[in-house]
Amino acid sequence: MRVSELVARTGVPLATVKYYLREGLLMPGEATSATQARYGEKHVERLGLVKALAGAGLPIPRIREILRLVDNPDGSLFEVLGEAIAQLPPYLDASADEVDEFPRARAVLDRLGQVYDPRYVAVGQLERALEGLEEAGIPMTEERLEAYGRHVRGIAEIDIGLMPTESAEDAIRYAVLGTAIYEPVIAAMRRLAHQDVAQKRLRNPEEQEQQ
Amino acid sequence: MRVSELVARTGVPLATVKYYLREGLLMPGEATSATQARYGEKHVERLGLVKALAGAGLPIPRIREILRLVDNPDGSLFEVLGEAIAQLPPYLDASADEVDEFPRARAVLDRLGQVYDPRYVAVGQLERALEGLEEAGIPMTEERLEAYGRHVRGIAEIDIGLMPTESAEDAIRYAVLGTAIYEPVIAAMRRLAHQDVAQKRLRNPEEQEQQ
Repeated sequence: MRVSELVARTGVPLATVKYYLREGLLMPGEATSATQARYGEKHVERLGLVKALAGAGLPIPRIREILRLVDNPDGSLFEVLGEAIAQLPPYLDASADEVDEFPRARAVLDRLGQVYDPRYVAVGQLERALEGLEEAGIPMTEERLEAYGRHVRGIAEIDIGLMPTESAEDAIRYAVLGTAIYEPVIAAMRRLAHQDVAQKRLRNPEEQEQQ
Repeated sequence: MRVSELVARTGVPLATVKYYLREGLLMPGEATSATQARYGEKHVERLGLVKALAGAGLPIPRIREILRLVDNPDGSLFEVLGEAIAQLPPYLDASADEVDEFPRARAVLDRLGQVYDPRYVAVGQLERALEGLEEAGIPMTEERLEAYGRHVRGIAEIDIGLMPTESAEDAIRYAVLGTAIYEPVIAAMRRLAHQDVAQKRLRNPEEQEQQ
């Protein structure tokens, strides 16, 4: 197909397609003349992936690194998944790289019975988020941690259970996109569940007590 | 206390304190001379709240609106909570305000047995997030929705159960901050749970099968 059809199929504007070509995020088409090239299904797929990653807020260098992992998965699926997911926001500032101790995250992971590995980027993210709770005066409690831990694990189990494992590319695509783009879904669902639970408890306190 | 002590107590830089005073986010201190003022515990508390909201990524006009609700709660606690939480990101573009139909969110809420009310801002957020899933080629499935719905509701129940209801100010502070600053905690916990579950399943598939 010509580039105009690629634009129509993917909904990615021509200027953006050209930018992705220049940045190496989209592989070149097959040249048919000095100024034209033919594109195929792999270009449609790749543009869909780049669009999704960009839509999830990932900057170009992070998208490039994920595409590199998708194209050249090196190491076990488990290791490649870890590297790919490390490209996702939130990004910690450079100085945090030097820190290898995350006491709040360590305490939470110990309590949940999970391995504490400071090299894993989400450990630093958890530490920063837990620090934010303390600054805001709503620190994590035992009771909340127990409930969150149980429910978050239930969500993670369905996520991993639904992951395709036939090819590294499919698994990485699923893991990276699933991690990034399901986060806003979970956040919106939680807000709506808050509303629903609050409505039932705050509007009808008598009813609540009778249950 | 003098402003220097306020800075030391809260960790908010002097320039930022002055900016918050100018913007009306922090109430003025008691003037002790033409150039000096005295501050009290309410200033420490308010600065902590503004710092936490700003740290959660809220822009100044949104913080101002939340402080207005905290200072002048008008309507039932349920309504005020809804207005306060509507100030949180993600913000939908202006054109979305005109849309009153969110078919994907409606289908999800119907399936979960929750009320569909398009005026509630998280409905639009859910719609946008679900649309992102489709674009990325990992749409919501019945199986995932059932599991997510159950676990997210479990999280929301502990959240609402731990909410202070003595004063509207405390409830709003808890609901707004709790919604905003617990989202990154849940996201980081989910990523770490992914790692833990994936490690157990992908590294030891034989062990997994024996269980």
